[in-house]
Amino acid sequence: MSQFNNVSVVKKANVYFDGNVTSRAVILEDGSKVTLGIMLPGEYEFGTGAKEIMDIQAGELSVLLPGQDAWLDIAEPTKFEVPANSSFKLKVKTVTDYICSYID
Amino acid sequence: MSQFNNVSVVKKANVYFDGNVTSRAVILEDGSKVTLGIMLPGEYEFGTGAKEIMDIQAGELSVLLPGQDAWLDIAEPTKFEVPANSSFKLKVKTVTDYICSYID
Repeated sequence: MSQFNNVSVVKKANVYFDGNVTSRAVILEDGSKVTLGIMLPGEYEFGTGAKEIMDIQAGELSVLLPGQDAWLDIAEPTKFEVPANSSFKLKVKTVTDYICSYID
Repeated sequence: MSQFNNVSVVKKANVYFDGNVTSRAVILEDGSKVTLGIMLPGEYEFGTGAKEIMDIQAGELSVLLPGQDAWLDIAEPTKFEVPANSSFKLKVKTVTDYICSYID
């Protein structure tokens, strides 16, 4: 499905790392939230509250998941999971378009 | 109102100028489309098909509208209109969060 239907979109953007990572919050019909985001090339680290599923729609990056020594090379279309209450590092190689889901 | 309700969101981002300008298309209840976008600092030129209303939610920029000699300095919250079938130039000074509406 190429679009989310019957949702709400928060107008104000989420802006991180001087705009190199930005996202929009979308509240789905079942009340759960996802964010649709863009990451420009660069290196970033994010913390998690809930468990996250990162769905890479476009782009190339490497990710270092918590407790891992080896970086994972990732290219669309790929999903990866990040445990709750942890953090993960990203080396973004090309403009990356992602959807992040939050699993309570 | 801080969010759009009962809308559809196209999953795939619109990416321009190597990711320095990106947006998400949102289809409103009445079937009209808006885009929620981010512009990083830089200089850009965009063409228009339909008339556009640019609603600057956050950020500082200057805009040169078609047929004008003087640049307009703009800071949120401000709206400006761009005629149909024309183009406009932007000098974006700070990360800018905008909503663009299209008027047929």
